[in-house]
Amino acid sequence: MAKALTREPSLAGDPLGGMHPVSELMEYHQFLKLVFSEIGPIASFEKITLPEAVGRVLATDFRARRSIPDFRRSNFDGYAVRAVDTAGASKSSPVKLSLSGFSKPGKPYSRALGQSECVRIFTGAALPRGADAVVMVEYTEASGGTIRVFEEVASGSRYDDVGADIRRGSLLLPRGRRIRPLDLPIIASQGVDSLKVTVRPKVLVVPTGNEVKPVGSRLKNGEIYDANSLAVAELTRKRGAIVMPLAPVRDSPQAISDILSRYSGHYHMIAFIGGSSAGAEDYIARLVAEKGKVFVHGIAISPGRPTLFGCVGKTLVLGIPGHPASSVAVTVLAAYPIVDRLSGAIEDAPCSYVRLASQPDCPKELTCLRTVRATGASATLAYRSSSQLSSFLNSDGYILTDANAAAANRDDGWVRLHFF
Amino acid sequence: MAKALTREPSLAGDPLGGMHPVSELMEYHQFLKLVFSEIGPIASFEKITLPEAVGRVLATDFRARRSIPDFRRSNFDGYAVRAVDTAGASKSSPVKLSLSGFSKPGKPYSRALGQSECVRIFTGAALPRGADAVVMVEYTEASGGTIRVFEEVASGSRYDDVGADIRRGSLLLPRGRRIRPLDLPIIASQGVDSLKVTVRPKVLVVPTGNEVKPVGSRLKNGEIYDANSLAVAELTRKRGAIVMPLAPVRDSPQAISDILSRYSGHYHMIAFIGGSSAGAEDYIARLVAEKGKVFVHGIAISPGRPTLFGCVGKTLVLGIPGHPASSVAVTVLAAYPIVDRLSGAIEDAPCSYVRLASQPDCPKELTCLRTVRATGASATLAYRSSSQLSSFLNSDGYILTDANAAAANRDDGWVRLHFF
Repeated sequence: MAKALTREPSLAGDPLGGMHPVSELMEYHQFLKLVFSEIGPIASFEKITLPEAVGRVLATDFRARRSIPDFRRSNFDGYAVRAVDTAGASKSSPVKLSLSGFSKPGKPYSRALGQSECVRIFTGAALPRGADAVVMVEYTEASGGTIRVFEEVASGSRYDDVGADIRRGSLLLPRGRRIRPLDLPIIASQGVDSLKVTVRPKVLVVPTGNEVKPVGSRLKNGEIYDANSLAVAELTRKRGAIVMPLAPVRDSPQAISDILSRYSGHYHMIAFIGGSSAGAEDYIARLVAEKGKVFVHGIAISPGRPTLFGCVGKTLVLGIPGHPASSVAVTVLAAYPIVDRLSGAIEDAPCSYVRLASQPDCPKELTCLRTVRATGASATLAYRSSSQLSSFLNSDGYILTDANAAAANRDDGWVRLHFF
Repeated sequence: MAKALTREPSLAGDPLGGMHPVSELMEYHQFLKLVFSEIGPIASFEKITLPEAVGRVLATDFRARRSIPDFRRSNFDGYAVRAVDTAGASKSSPVKLSLSGFSKPGKPYSRALGQSECVRIFTGAALPRGADAVVMVEYTEASGGTIRVFEEVASGSRYDDVGADIRRGSLLLPRGRRIRPLDLPIIASQGVDSLKVTVRPKVLVVPTGNEVKPVGSRLKNGEIYDANSLAVAELTRKRGAIVMPLAPVRDSPQAISDILSRYSGHYHMIAFIGGSSAGAEDYIARLVAEKGKVFVHGIAISPGRPTLFGCVGKTLVLGIPGHPASSVAVTVLAAYPIVDRLSGAIEDAPCSYVRLASQPDCPKELTCLRTVRATGASATLAYRSSSQLSSFLNSDGYILTDANAAAANRDDGWVRLHFF
């Protein structure tokens, strides 16, 4: 595992510091491997109804149970005919067919079509037995029970055969698919109104810091509002977790220890915000090491280097650095893959691109997440620094820079854009 | 208003057809003007809490009530100093300062800094009065109450001044903004835990058609499941409406008339799916004309030309064609702008681009919506035809083609991608 030295200060000789310095960084792709190896999908499932399905993760492959259409479906208003009966028909030399009845959507013609017969048919209706083509109404003229047909049609014309749209047995949506809005009609077309999905991981979000106060309270000098936990909670929820946010917790070993004791075993993950760096007020890494295991402390990402990932019993612990832009970056770079792994989701973000007005200043050895504004012909950086909330202002999405991201980018200067 | 002739068949002489043929098409940009002129924003508002805010539309400009930071905030662990006291300091010639106390996040040093004094300070903590710089801890050495400083720092170094991130009074989010996840921390940072937003438009979704059966029922020959209404409802809900879906309704004048009588006045919009084209089974346009007003019947879009837009009393009526791909296209092209207008939302989809592997076959005189798959270096068309549900399979988003869309595209062959 390649590791890079950080620029974290050595706290040797500091009367207050020196505890658990983040001295080595794990490369981001190694972190992703770690997530994959240390976590397994939650092995339980639930049935949900179709309107609840968006955002949920399919527990099994979804295959077509029936063909669409499952009858021969007319694509036009006109007449269902036997193609052979239209042989030689033209404007100047129409053929005459006798009108035997109607086929409307949901009300098919029940008999078979005989020689030189036709049936008035509407878009979406079923072709009668014996018919093998549709003549469009504008190439006909009706006069009582006789229909004059002005064009010759080939067998198979102007209708969809059984399975032309969706073939019975074909794979429509794979296991691990996070259901999107346009998957709903696909599923509904199969007559399926409930789905087996994976359960949602339960995540406790715990903002920490003596200076961090609940939104709406009265601040004293040097205090700030708990802004981060709303973003962490909302993004994690949107990714598919059930999120329980706590009010800010004091940054004391006792308070953190209490949280770990009280909630581990009840959540799949506890996500602390703040208190994961190597500063003197940071007890989380030490407590997780004492009560469980630290998988990694320090990941080569920017912002968010001091990220902590470990477990206490079966509960995962994520230590998210407390700077605003860091907390969002680590939610995307660490919480997302963890939630995906727990829920069995296959990440399948579409590739869309932007062209950047200027290149971001990102250290090569780090995987950098940079918020961008993508409203004009060229996208601009919204990111200012890890500590700046204004990195979120006007940000439409983010870009990633590292060796892997570069491979996903295009050599003509276009960069992959991801959306929040 | 420029209009184009359609290729809809003339139904003259047809014993069953001929009612309300869609013979003229309104250009799409004219339709958007019509939406703007015929609809006003709903003039009522509500207060919601912050965690409920995503997707809601701001009723007023949101301005910064406080600066961020609202104190001088250290960006590093180290010592708060008077810059003048570090004059000439270097590795070989350190200056000595006396340690007067601590400033921790949320627990500031309460006195002013005197000459040759320093205060141990942590990232995020407030600078004491008198201090005007921070020396990083790695450029210092502590020995009891004496701190040796190895670098000279300029006034203003290594802290954020009041308002450096967000300046009090500045516009953070404009009226009409549809709240996104990363807006939450911006708002929370201001200590604001509730917001005034516009009310959500109420939309009734009514699938029609004798052949259309509820998902889960048993089908007879020629019948299909109601797949469209799930997509229409989900997309419309996601756009910000409160959506009430009805079970499929028979395609009879009485059934449609009953719906209009019973529900108009109770919803901002009734969206019928199916029954809006010029086919013989289509009564909706006639009934809307009788009971209210048809603004337009026939828009130059593909798919979705027979779209109907009108009103009965104060309730808008949208007639969405029943083909699957048409119903989604019309939801995007017509229901979205209507919902946006009703809710006062300012559309602000970010610009992201794809490069298409092949050009879609779109008539020049129509605004075409085409679903695309955007998973590789080049995007491919997912769209097959208006009647094919498989147009949704693997579709990640859509592109638009017309004169306006072309202007939004780039001359180097990149096309704007929109997401569902």
